[in-house]
Amino acid sequence: MDRVPVLKIGDILLVSIQIDMEDQVALQLQEDLAEKIVATGCHGVIIDISALDIVDSFVGRTLATIASVSKVLDADTVVVGMRPAVAITLVELGLSLPGIRTALNVELGMELLAKARAELDWEAGDSGDDEDEPAVTAP
Amino acid sequence: MDRVPVLKIGDILLVSIQIDMEDQVALQLQEDLAEKIVATGCHGVIIDISALDIVDSFVGRTLATIASVSKVLDADTVVVGMRPAVAITLVELGLSLPGIRTALNVELGMELLAKARAELDWEAGDSGDDEDEPAVTAP
Repeated sequence: MDRVPVLKIGDILLVSIQIDMEDQVALQLQEDLAEKIVATGCHGVIIDISALDIVDSFVGRTLATIASVSKVLDADTVVVGMRPAVAITLVELGLSLPGIRTALNVELGMELLAKARAELDWEAGDSGDDEDEPAVTAP
Repeated sequence: MDRVPVLKIGDILLVSIQIDMEDQVALQLQEDLAEKIVATGCHGVIIDISALDIVDSFVGRTLATIASVSKVLDADTVVVGMRPAVAITLVELGLSLPGIRTALNVELGMELLAKARAELDWEAGDSGDDEDEPAVTAP
């Protein structure tokens, strides 16, 4: 039972971390997630850490690696469910989880991902017309 | 870290069991779920057991209790992600999880819940007319 399951819900892969993130577990999770992103073609990853009492630098680094790998595979990552005490400890430790987007809960994380994806699609489909839509200006 | 988080996704509460279901954990989960059903008004509970290598009679009983409590609170329960080996062992042990509905994965579980809910609404709103439309008639 040293494996974190990856659940597919629509276009999103959901991971709920409940066990201690030891080296082997973290590596396995990275691998499982990367394989599942490729297998399913999902564009979003939500990692729920509401069960974690502590997020140390190792867990922070693991989350950052997962986010980077997902990004390369064209999937956005959102970390959700962080406890207030965990957030305070993180900042006190000087860890601010750079490159990781967060949301309060799974539903808000899904909204964030859907919005990010819509903006991306909009950019991709931008044909240069000047609509009122203030959302994104294509580079 | 001896608590299983309950995640709200739309009208469904999702629980991914990854830790050993000891007495205290099981009781806490029952309590958390019941409270969350009442607090959110969700009509469906999905319990993912894809991380479990073993489902013994205690876990089976816990799942049955959760399903019964949820039912009383007007929520349906579906157990998803059971491994083939677990299913074989369950039957060999003579445990067939009576009263528990199962689905292969979270998405199919969601479909099952949506269908069950639609049928329930239909029954409730059934005014005796013989339309072809089996979907939903407003109450």
